[in-house]
Amino acid sequence: MNDSIHDHDELHKGAPQTGTRLLADVSLPAAVIHESALAHNLAWMQGFCDAHGARLAPHGKTTMCPELFQRQLAAGAWGITLATAPQCRAAFRHGVNRLLMANQLVGEANMAIVAGLIEAGADFYCVVDSLANVEQLARYFTACGLRLKVLIELGLPGGRCGCRDTDEVMALAERIDSEQALVLSGLEGYEGVVHGSDPERAVRAYAWQLVEAAQGLERDALIETPQPLITASGSAWYDLIAEVFHEAHLGAQFVPVLRPGCYVVHDHGIYRQAQRDILERQPRIEHGLKPALEVFAQVVSLPEPGQAIIGMGKRDIGHDQLPEPLRRYREGDERGRALSVQGWQVIRLMDQHAFVRLPRESEEPEVGNGRVRVGDIVAFGTSHPCLTFDKWRRICRVDERLEVVEVMQTCF
Amino acid sequence: MNDSIHDHDELHKGAPQTGTRLLADVSLPAAVIHESALAHNLAWMQGFCDAHGARLAPHGKTTMCPELFQRQLAAGAWGITLATAPQCRAAFRHGVNRLLMANQLVGEANMAIVAGLIEAGADFYCVVDSLANVEQLARYFTACGLRLKVLIELGLPGGRCGCRDTDEVMALAERIDSEQALVLSGLEGYEGVVHGSDPERAVRAYAWQLVEAAQGLERDALIETPQPLITASGSAWYDLIAEVFHEAHLGAQFVPVLRPGCYVVHDHGIYRQAQRDILERQPRIEHGLKPALEVFAQVVSLPEPGQAIIGMGKRDIGHDQLPEPLRRYREGDERGRALSVQGWQVIRLMDQHAFVRLPRESEEPEVGNGRVRVGDIVAFGTSHPCLTFDKWRRICRVDERLEVVEVMQTCF
Repeated sequence: MNDSIHDHDELHKGAPQTGTRLLADVSLPAAVIHESALAHNLAWMQGFCDAHGARLAPHGKTTMCPELFQRQLAAGAWGITLATAPQCRAAFRHGVNRLLMANQLVGEANMAIVAGLIEAGADFYCVVDSLANVEQLARYFTACGLRLKVLIELGLPGGRCGCRDTDEVMALAERIDSEQALVLSGLEGYEGVVHGSDPERAVRAYAWQLVEAAQGLERDALIETPQPLITASGSAWYDLIAEVFHEAHLGAQFVPVLRPGCYVVHDHGIYRQAQRDILERQPRIEHGLKPALEVFAQVVSLPEPGQAIIGMGKRDIGHDQLPEPLRRYREGDERGRALSVQGWQVIRLMDQHAFVRLPRESEEPEVGNGRVRVGDIVAFGTSHPCLTFDKWRRICRVDERLEVVEVMQTCF
Repeated sequence: MNDSIHDHDELHKGAPQTGTRLLADVSLPAAVIHESALAHNLAWMQGFCDAHGARLAPHGKTTMCPELFQRQLAAGAWGITLATAPQCRAAFRHGVNRLLMANQLVGEANMAIVAGLIEAGADFYCVVDSLANVEQLARYFTACGLRLKVLIELGLPGGRCGCRDTDEVMALAERIDSEQALVLSGLEGYEGVVHGSDPERAVRAYAWQLVEAAQGLERDALIETPQPLITASGSAWYDLIAEVFHEAHLGAQFVPVLRPGCYVVHDHGIYRQAQRDILERQPRIEHGLKPALEVFAQVVSLPEPGQAIIGMGKRDIGHDQLPEPLRRYREGDERGRALSVQGWQVIRLMDQHAFVRLPRESEEPEVGNGRVRVGDIVAFGTSHPCLTFDKWRRICRVDERLEVVEVMQTCF
């Protein structure tokens, strides 16, 4: 161990510091969040939920960034949604008390994590969709002397998890009702796995099915909590879920909870398209979300005409689609002047390198916009954000002058 | 902050502890390395390099796992190869003194990291392939009063980084020779980007080109170090590189250094195939590498006939190809009896879920092998390992009884 420069807090790529200039002082590649777009998105989605009478429990698995969880809560979020027991533990440790685990709680080691959270005072919910899992949970939490709040998941035929119809939901509810350790607290769904030729219609139909199943549980007095939840929505169809929950006038019986995650930094790919669809469906909404997350990286080689090699790869950025060059800067430029990357195209991504095809102009003698040089810094966008966040232990939040105003931790 | 269960060292998925049983005590999903296969691979590759008179500098970017770096060094490795300045810093902090950064060092923030390493006593090498970068490095390291050891990269037309021919190499060497701050220390190449209809022939030809360029540098007395390096090889063609370096009798003039990375845990995909090709090309080698890295995850739902949903997704496992179910276990089974997953097939991977198509037999009433249940644990293999390692902050090293003998950290 070389103690002279050893520091556990810097066990990560780059070790950026607050107050530094992104274009001069930060080891690149680095993941970057633009404050102005972030602030816009936080307010936008909270406003959308408020306008529809719904609570917002942003999916935290997108970012796993406690600083963003706190921003979401400060903006008015009701709680944070998470995908796994370790994610819930990480969020709770960073001050998130209301945790909606939108998945099944399976495995005694995961149940032990959740038991610890409940004992420590967390307001925890998870979902169930099988008698087998209900029995496992009842056995475990009975032995602990704790009560676990569960939501029944209603899925879709050919979909992911979840009961396949209302009969299954009712049978499961009766089984839960017989277990002292389990508290039926509402109904959960996820419309992100709808399929078929008319997904908009299918999402609406599914949302109504959720409403009817929830009302069935209420009618049969199978729900134990005074403020049961009805919750659905990912990042692509939340407007339709919100509309149906609103039209159903659930407010008095159920707390409607929406769970989009990617909105917080939006996207340069699938969610940009999804957002365009939402704005088309919802003509009253004038402005949409703004992409806030980028990866900044440098040209490391210009080995032959028409080609630039960038020091950024699958280790640094989501690669459901190839990253998109957005802007270029000169290293150290104090004014942060953006140069064009018109015609630049990523054609291949390896673990630590991106291959960019350059248009002819970028190689001509320096005029105006500046011929590309080794060391030039390129900002890239991509899709989807979940698979960029999980590449980083630290993310630079920057202001409009590209100064680092916060170095945010992730806790994957 | 909920201090009652707050512990910075556990800011990661799962928090497994040494001495626990993988099938009972560890939060799943979890990344797992089998000690027996790991030990085999460490010895195998060191033996291979020894037999070819080459030094081994395993590519550390594959794992970024200091415990594995130490195992590689203990097995006889000459140093550790890395891809970026922050990776080099992380390795040095964990006791690796000889660092071969097999990429260009670009950006003053990255140069500052490397300057810190050299000042702290690291034996550091990086590669250069452009006059622009040579000038940047010379300016920076002259200002620091330090000397930087560089290797010239010889690439391939249509490839990644690197000079495109020997003339470019010689011109660059002369420029380096004129800079007091830079110490030309050898030649570097990477054959992993060869292309064309006969890659075997192309790799051999490229290896000979490296040899000739290195000999040219030596002949013109452009190399400054007494023990210059010649280095190439990823994880698919190291046998051909080793052969050519061996046949060229470089031993006296150059230290030949091989840099495979994935061998340490091998693979269930592209490198399994590459290894078969190597064994075919090298009939004297009897046994090859063994896959050592798996992800263990649980069945969370059996929502309809023929379908199992697993609590493991793109957040947990590399997805250049869909993961391969290898074995199944009952949660808590003390004997660790492996059940069959014959006919199981992953058909889709989301962020936190895998969709498995089940054969008819697995759903029949329990006989012998055991009908699949919610909570069953499935071991998955995948390709390639670099993109599984970077999903995890902790990895469980297990013995043959599936007890956790070490919880290994990664430092991405």
